Amino acid sequence: MPNQSNQKIAPPVPITDLDLDQNAGVPLYRQLYEGLRRSILVGELSPGVRLPSTRALAADLSIGRNTVVNAYEQLLAEGYLEGRTGSGTYVAAELPDHLLRVRSDQRKSAKSRKAGRGLSSRGHLLAGTTVSEPHDFAIPRAFRAGLPAMEIFPFKTWSRLWNRRWRSPSLDLLGYGDPAGYRPLREIIASYLGAVRGVRCEADQVIMIAGSQQALDIVTRVLLNEGDVVWVEDPGYPGARGAFQGAGAEVAPVPVDSQGLDIATGIARAPNARLAYVTPSHQYPLGITMTLSRRLELLDWAARNRSWVLEDDYDSEYRYAGLPIAALQGLDEEDSVIYVGSFSKTLFPSLRIGYMVVPQGLVDTFVAARELIDRGSPSLEQAVLADFMVEGHFERHIRRTRSLYAERQEALVESAERDLRGLMEVRPSSSGMDLIGRLAKGVDDRLAQRLAAQHDVEATPLSTYYFEPPEQGGLLLGFTGVDEAQIAAGTRRLAEALSSLD
Amino acid sequence: MPNQSNQKIAPPVPITDLDLDQNAGVPLYRQLYEGLRRSILVGELSPGVRLPSTRALAADLSIGRNTVVNAYEQLLAEGYLEGRTGSGTYVAAELPDHLLRVRSDQRKSAKSRKAGRGLSSRGHLLAGTTVSEPHDFAIPRAFRAGLPAMEIFPFKTWSRLWNRRWRSPSLDLLGYGDPAGYRPLREIIASYLGAVRGVRCEADQVIMIAGSQQALDIVTRVLLNEGDVVWVEDPGYPGARGAFQGAGAEVAPVPVDSQGLDIATGIARAPNARLAYVTPSHQYPLGITMTLSRRLELLDWAARNRSWVLEDDYDSEYRYAGLPIAALQGLDEEDSVIYVGSFSKTLFPSLRIGYMVVPQGLVDTFVAARELIDRGSPSLEQAVLADFMVEGHFERHIRRTRSLYAERQEALVESAERDLRGLMEVRPSSSGMDLIGRLAKGVDDRLAQRLAAQHDVEATPLSTYYFEPPEQGGLLLGFTGVDEAQIAAGTRRLAEALSSLD
Repeated sequence: MPNQSNQKIAPPVPITDLDLDQNAGVPLYRQLYEGLRRSILVGELSPGVRLPSTRALAADLSIGRNTVVNAYEQLLAEGYLEGRTGSGTYVAAELPDHLLRVRSDQRKSAKSRKAGRGLSSRGHLLAGTTVSEPHDFAIPRAFRAGLPAMEIFPFKTWSRLWNRRWRSPSLDLLGYGDPAGYRPLREIIASYLGAVRGVRCEADQVIMIAGSQQALDIVTRVLLNEGDVVWVEDPGYPGARGAFQGAGAEVAPVPVDSQGLDIATGIARAPNARLAYVTPSHQYPLGITMTLSRRLELLDWAARNRSWVLEDDYDSEYRYAGLPIAALQGLDEEDSVIYVGSFSKTLFPSLRIGYMVVPQGLVDTFVAARELIDRGSPSLEQAVLADFMVEGHFERHIRRTRSLYAERQEALVESAERDLRGLMEVRPSSSGMDLIGRLAKGVDDRLAQRLAAQHDVEATPLSTYYFEPPEQGGLLLGFTGVDEAQIAAGTRRLAEALSSLD
Repeated sequence: MPNQSNQKIAPPVPITDLDLDQNAGVPLYRQLYEGLRRSILVGELSPGVRLPSTRALAADLSIGRNTVVNAYEQLLAEGYLEGRTGSGTYVAAELPDHLLRVRSDQRKSAKSRKAGRGLSSRGHLLAGTTVSEPHDFAIPRAFRAGLPAMEIFPFKTWSRLWNRRWRSPSLDLLGYGDPAGYRPLREIIASYLGAVRGVRCEADQVIMIAGSQQALDIVTRVLLNEGDVVWVEDPGYPGARGAFQGAGAEVAPVPVDSQGLDIATGIARAPNARLAYVTPSHQYPLGITMTLSRRLELLDWAARNRSWVLEDDYDSEYRYAGLPIAALQGLDEEDSVIYVGSFSKTLFPSLRIGYMVVPQGLVDTFVAARELIDRGSPSLEQAVLADFMVEGHFERHIRRTRSLYAERQEALVESAERDLRGLMEVRPSSSGMDLIGRLAKGVDDRLAQRLAAQHDVEATPLSTYYFEPPEQGGLLLGFTGVDEAQIAAGTRRLAEALSSLD
């Protein structure tokens, strides 16, 4: 029989239908987390509703209190719940924007679950995460992040190379290809990465993939068991978090400071993490380059702990000042680093070609996994890309875009100074494809995003990338995908949008 | 202390280093299975070595006897172990060919495991399965199976369409695309499938994928939990078995008879399977078309049991006689069928474009999963393919290849009658891209394959597709990828090869 104090703090709506199963192979706290999240998303638990205390719910469900605490903390971190100090835990009054897309789906899957024919637990996790915003699929606008200047892509050259390959296509380029990728492309990438990024590898360690998201997926499956802990950067790339969580790994947020990932805090919080996901060249989204001492600290931890490091060498090609920083992979003596790169930013995203460099001992396993996943990337496009690189067009295109992006960044900084003074601070960066526009403290960056959208400006709120809302919000402003006139018009419209914030 | 009888049947080599962990989240029998398999592959357990009885090993390891029985049975089914009636269980004297590719990898991963930094259990499973034979990546030869006649592909038309799209590429075809696929292509596929295959769907239920292997992968992840049971056809497609096992599902082999999948046996063996994987139009590899009554039986079981049916509509376009058989999906009233098709056989494999049709309630989840997996297929190729279909080139190409394949099949049957009489029986088929050449009873089809390879002939042994070696072996002979002269030369060389079998 529940005691008096439990009765008093019982929620207005009962928490039912949770189906916790001690033998499910899925940890109880995760089952509880999923059950509560589903109830919130399908509206069984309404916004603002108060949840029972961790103690009371643990007693009701006859489970340990820590199980409830863990589930609540995850839901708090993800914005499904809100905690009011001293007065309990509530369903968030307003669900984060990026969860809205999930709702209709969850409703449907809840329906099919009721019909007894449902998703797997992985399916639920996968369904609960989104990588792209819907606008990502439309015509470029200021200030969409991570979008290359596609209008200066050498279309004619690419076309010439494509037609040369296609005119008399070798039959081995039309049949099933090697799931590891087209060999000549792997060779030229190995030598490119050695020369330009300080990556140490043989061609057979280069595995072609369908963009860097696939690397996250394959690494997760080949190296992580359900429940394994992964360090992710906080703030960091939501698509990485999603891939890890979608495979049932535990995500441990590790803060980023001015030197990059804060290794000491990572070790304190999750000393035995099995993998660390990092963007050392240009931290996503803060743009920080990880210092050498942090790099060594990270590799040292990985070696001592026998953990893996997944280095996403995200937009490393775009450095406007100072010496290029060699990849972490080149410092690694212990075969602990898996290196990932992509042509999505340097050429164009819909090409869907990227690469990973894996330690020799993992090559066969990764290739076997890729084969079972989708049998490999299209061969002909890989052959065209190899020609493009061999003939020097790739490096030429990098040089051209690099100087164009330096100009565009300058244009953004200048027009922001002119239009956004007092509303937003935009400081230049020595690398990358976007800048952070810092809002005044206390300004809700998700509100700023919505206002900007009403003025036809795209900008991702900085808080999207954080586990806990940051002290000072901001907007991520991509400057590479649109021209200087669009940039100037963009800052003017953004100023109009933000001035209504007062 | 082990008793005398245990001592007596102990194996010459001790079974050590198994690291069974009750709390690993991976079932014990699977840990045992993996540990033994690894020991076999790295040579710690040599071919021919006798294993302890299930009772003795269970006692030694202090685990249940059923756990050992399950692990042994799986290893027996996969050919790692051999059972000699009345005299125990042995490591297979000769490992199946398709396992050899795994060996070097397992050796490496065993090494990195010893270094303490290893693969996940999924990683081990994925590493242990291969889909393609190495020759799949080379120039076509007689009688490689499933290879289209690429020499009559309308290269000029495709090139014209590609160049039209590429001349002034719309920027939304270069950026990130909708992970569900290019909308106009999904629409034309929906109407094509409705008209030609009797599939009932809206365009938004069509999800573009990178070939049918990816459908297996996504379905496995979204719909199956670790340990869920899946019906697979016996004999059947090894890539499906691999995808299911690689994700930790339990595979339940269900025999195929002259009417298709033997549903009654499936129900008797695994009544609560969560998913059935079937190739009803043209069973792979036997070529049988599932009868209507079996189709209804399957759907009825799925509806009662609330299970999923994965329909791989593998090479359904190639029917040479009789009426086309509509897809199973069109008979389904309960949203239990996921339908899969691919352009790998109708156009060319390296295009890496296929599609799945999923029940409305699963669309959002599958799209979210695809986005986290690799963010979707290349947009431009999808646009070119849409143009190719809209302008009627696709159906024209199907018609042309269909009559060409009918001729090539006839050529194979005739030259087999001439050259292979007494060595192999090759009967015509009313559908598909390959025929089965039956060997005399008692002839080892893997040996026949090796002899054929020495005579420059490719042919996959029928036993590759079976869980237990079939009574009568055979070779799968593809007749679509090479011309009549190559077919005739192929049967002559095959006859030379097989005549040395006597």
